[in-house]
Amino acid sequence: MRSNGVDEKYITGDSTDREKFQKWAETLERSIGNPLYHWSHLELQKYFGYHGVLNGKTAEEVWNLCNAKLAEDSMSVRNLIKQSGVTLICPTDDPADSLEWHKFIQADSTFDVQVLPAWRPDKADNIEKPDFADYLKKLGNAADMKIHTFADIKTALKKRMAFFHEMGCRASDHALEYVMYVPASDEEIEAIVAKKLSGGEVTKEEELKYKTAFMLFVGREYHRLGWAMQLHYGCKRDNNELMYAQMGPDTGFDCINNYAPSGQMADFLNALNKTDELPRTIIYSLNPNDDEAIGTILGCFQDASVAAKVQQGAAWWFNDHKTGMIKQMTSLANLGCLGNFIGMLTDSRSFLSYARHEYFRRILCELFGNWVESGEYPKDMDVLGGLIQDISYNNAVRYFGFDLEII
Amino acid sequence: MRSNGVDEKYITGDSTDREKFQKWAETLERSIGNPLYHWSHLELQKYFGYHGVLNGKTAEEVWNLCNAKLAEDSMSVRNLIKQSGVTLICPTDDPADSLEWHKFIQADSTFDVQVLPAWRPDKADNIEKPDFADYLKKLGNAADMKIHTFADIKTALKKRMAFFHEMGCRASDHALEYVMYVPASDEEIEAIVAKKLSGGEVTKEEELKYKTAFMLFVGREYHRLGWAMQLHYGCKRDNNELMYAQMGPDTGFDCINNYAPSGQMADFLNALNKTDELPRTIIYSLNPNDDEAIGTILGCFQDASVAAKVQQGAAWWFNDHKTGMIKQMTSLANLGCLGNFIGMLTDSRSFLSYARHEYFRRILCELFGNWVESGEYPKDMDVLGGLIQDISYNNAVRYFGFDLEII
Amino acid sequence: MRSNGVDEKYITGDSTDREKFQKWAETLERSIGNPLYHWSHLELQKYFGYHGVLNGKTAEEVWNLCNAKLAEDSMSVRNLIKQSGVTLICPTDDPADSLEWHKFIQADSTFDVQVLPAWRPDKADNIEKPDFADYLKKLGNAADMKIHTFADIKTALKKRMAFFHEMGCRASDHALEYVMYVPASDEEIEAIVAKKLSGGEVTKEEELKYKTAFMLFVGREYHRLGWAMQLHYGCKRDNNELMYAQMGPDTGFDCINNYAPSGQMADFLNALNKTDELPRTIIYSLNPNDDEAIGTILGCFQDASVAAKVQQGAAWWFNDHKTGMIKQMTSLANLGCLGNFIGMLTDSRSFLSYARHEYFRRILCELFGNWVESGEYPKDMDVLGGLIQDISYNNAVRYFGFDLEII
Repeated sequence: MRSNGVDEKYITGDSTDREKFQKWAETLERSIGNPLYHWSHLELQKYFGYHGVLNGKTAEEVWNLCNAKLAEDSMSVRNLIKQSGVTLICPTDDPADSLEWHKFIQADSTFDVQVLPAWRPDKADNIEKPDFADYLKKLGNAADMKIHTFADIKTALKKRMAFFHEMGCRASDHALEYVMYVPASDEEIEAIVAKKLSGGEVTKEEELKYKTAFMLFVGREYHRLGWAMQLHYGCKRDNNELMYAQMGPDTGFDCINNYAPSGQMADFLNALNKTDELPRTIIYSLNPNDDEAIGTILGCFQDASVAAKVQQGAAWWFNDHKTGMIKQMTSLANLGCLGNFIGMLTDSRSFLSYARHEYFRRILCELFGNWVESGEYPKDMDVLGGLIQDISYNNAVRYFGFDLEII
Repeated sequence: MRSNGVDEKYITGDSTDREKFQKWAETLERSIGNPLYHWSHLELQKYFGYHGVLNGKTAEEVWNLCNAKLAEDSMSVRNLIKQSGVTLICPTDDPADSLEWHKFIQADSTFDVQVLPAWRPDKADNIEKPDFADYLKKLGNAADMKIHTFADIKTALKKRMAFFHEMGCRASDHALEYVMYVPASDEEIEAIVAKKLSGGEVTKEEELKYKTAFMLFVGREYHRLGWAMQLHYGCKRDNNELMYAQMGPDTGFDCINNYAPSGQMADFLNALNKTDELPRTIIYSLNPNDDEAIGTILGCFQDASVAAKVQQGAAWWFNDHKTGMIKQMTSLANLGCLGNFIGMLTDSRSFLSYARHEYFRRILCELFGNWVESGEYPKDMDVLGGLIQDISYNNAVRYFGFDLEII
Repeated sequence: MRSNGVDEKYITGDSTDREKFQKWAETLERSIGNPLYHWSHLELQKYFGYHGVLNGKTAEEVWNLCNAKLAEDSMSVRNLIKQSGVTLICPTDDPADSLEWHKFIQADSTFDVQVLPAWRPDKADNIEKPDFADYLKKLGNAADMKIHTFADIKTALKKRMAFFHEMGCRASDHALEYVMYVPASDEEIEAIVAKKLSGGEVTKEEELKYKTAFMLFVGREYHRLGWAMQLHYGCKRDNNELMYAQMGPDTGFDCINNYAPSGQMADFLNALNKTDELPRTIIYSLNPNDDEAIGTILGCFQDASVAAKVQQGAAWWFNDHKTGMIKQMTSLANLGCLGNFIGMLTDSRSFLSYARHEYFRRILCELFGNWVESGEYPKDMDVLGGLIQDISYNNAVRYFGFDLEII
């Protein structure tokens, strides 16, 4: 909407929802080729039974139809989830989180979709942030201890990992500037932490050393626990200070950071692997140019513990569209074994966004269909169907070791 | 032609034009897939009515036909421009230029195509060049003052901008190594300029600091004047010293420079934006790998002052072909609002090169047609036609604020 | 197979060949879109007459059929080569190699396929390696001299180049981290070599200076001899230390290194070219993102000595698939003269891998066919057929100056 010159009043401002929807509908018409065009219409079809086109002229009709529909019982969050065929959800949680709502939902026998925590310890990794020391207090409280050293940080995280594991956690998630590898001795790391906790400023070099040590520590723990390590990287956040001052972080002002040395990524994985402590690892780049480097790195660290132990994650965020998905899957097919891909994830916070999984499956099927039509794979519907089911569902169940039946 | 092993004699040398044309026609046949193949045949069709194939065998026939046609009145430069449906042209001019020919053409009532100056101050930005001090003298003369400091440079440029604005200028153009952001204090910049003007050598770091300060200054002025800031980057020029010694600069020996940190580009735009002084900005990369990073940066700095205030420029120079255009427009569609794209520009110096705008429009229409055929956008010819007209013409009129009617 | 979770026992381990084949067949079925799928079926069709699908269920049948076929005379290595229509082969050899097998095969009148050595002096270039000094002894022995200095290295290499040239060598090959350009004086280079030979450790900067000087030296010699200089770059090798300890180098654990400054590549070629000593040069990147930068660099250094003197090499290694080939050829078509492309090379060590040349030709023909169908090149089968034959065969014959007839 900002790219369409819409005033912030109609985006995050104080206009009415109906006015905002109107501006959105008008923007959508001009957004030919954009995944939001496809998602919106898929959501309207799938959840609202609307098969027309959303634009400035139809906005009123769609608004009324959707509001009527949203008042129905079938459109409760739980019913949307059920109706979407969801069997398991892993929202991410901070290590200091009490997981009380996870306990609540696990105790609720009226909802049979599994909801498991996923571990996202970015705040303990981001030593350069001003609130690092404050966060460590919070983490210490959660772990029932005081944190003064890197050794303490590790102890606290281990305690919390044990708790998360008990609550069903099987996956972690990390937002990294890039997958760095700047090794340092334990003494150096302790000195860096001591400096930070006494109010000092850590240098970029020290930050990279701390983060390398942090990631090596958690990676080994994930291996021990059988968790998957998800690495997201390549984002430069909150670039617009003017809007940041008004709206705070994570409000739509991020971009691709194109500095991401593939050599360090390979060295980091090797550092875990050389003692046979590399966990299942899923690598997501925000820069589609990294697809091929990632694809070749995967191939260096596979082993027989699980099919495609090191995965390239689905086309994510700015790549979450037909072009990005086809590029990511084609690259993975060229360089690895696409049949073992664990498929799509959604990082949308909308309960209608399950339509994006259908979007992914349609694009996957088109890709396979095109290969079959051009004679690059035989038209054996049993085999093709099996591969589609695996990529869409079964591979993820097997990879994470979820307690679910294979279809 | 050099890639076809043709001797320089037949390219820039002393052979006859007919001989050169023969070598060109023979080269063209081997250049399957090259945009020159398409452009040449489009120009032959559109301006010469020749619908055959240009190759070594037909070169004589085409040569004769074209020469006969060129002798006709309809093929004068002014008639070619009119016949191409051109309504407005913005050639670039140096700040020190008197714009006398602009005055001349503006005073000429027999030619109703608008010709407006565009501001290209590269010589005042390129502090590392040996002729920087000489250029400042020229600029000082044009601004009727002496230039001894960065403050003087700014004053002189402001005077010239006022004059350019009066002459109808609405756009600037900058050729940058990359969009850098290395901020420094006013004192540092003055010291760098003083060093250079007293015959000293500026370091790379000093060059980057000066250029950052320069671009921040002009960017703010553009915002004040309502001009667009065009940033072209990613080129390494005059790589072949042997040919440079014979032929001088800008004779066909440039390549893509792949160092272009997206983080600095975002920081530069933010530095202008945080005081609400970011002008309309158009970013062109020579490296197609930058499309996606640029697409995400656009989204960080849009506002309601004009639709798609920060634009990605059309596929330019080495990307000015079907592959490059489709990649640029697909990326823009995925990441922004393609309907607000201001479309094609030509930096060719040929008066037949308006055919490249037709080339662009054909590719644009094919792209839209493919989306419609695969069900990704509805087949509503009114809406589609409107979007095509906007991208081909109206968006640019609105964006630059030209005095032209919308079609 | 590792990406399919197959145990190393069935890959490089001590299971039976039949068991390994079974695991391979099972993996292949899941590798939809992978070039190995296409190559394997092309090889089965072309050399074994098997037109079915290889998978877990058919593995037994295919195994028996292939073994029966392999026992036939027609499947000897020499007969496979003849049957594949091969006229000339250039395996790479170390400068210290005696080329005794080349002498043997050249003396054998029963085999009329030319086999010429190609010069691959990586060991003399890799000054950072621990075995550099040992290698220089070996090289000195081959050249019948002692090596103490960089001048000695150059003398020894010149002697060996003269011998290789006499044996028919017309091409060199270099594996580089990237195409670097860090010039230094002769004195600096001699000091670096002296340091290394007295047991010292060379810094990264010294390594880059030595390698730049080395490549400038050999480049000039290649120009004098009329050899082609092949530059492969962009690989980070042996990333998995755990497997390296078990299996040694070059066992499938390499990845793309994405650091490759295009500016240094241009500067390196210019340094050779400015004294008119740039040899025919073929540039291969492992990172497909480099295609466009390479394409623009080619255009800076072409001359009339041979058509397309500076070439972009075929899509190589990790790019050796339909996606990679189409991207490389489309980029070359956009930026250069595709009709002069010298086409496919195989760096496979399998005698069945000649099928990959058919794979390349099919993809090339499809690319041309698509251009013709969309009206981007006329349907003139004589011209199209001529271009295909040139790219598939004749261009390479002419480029390397082989003693072979043009078809």
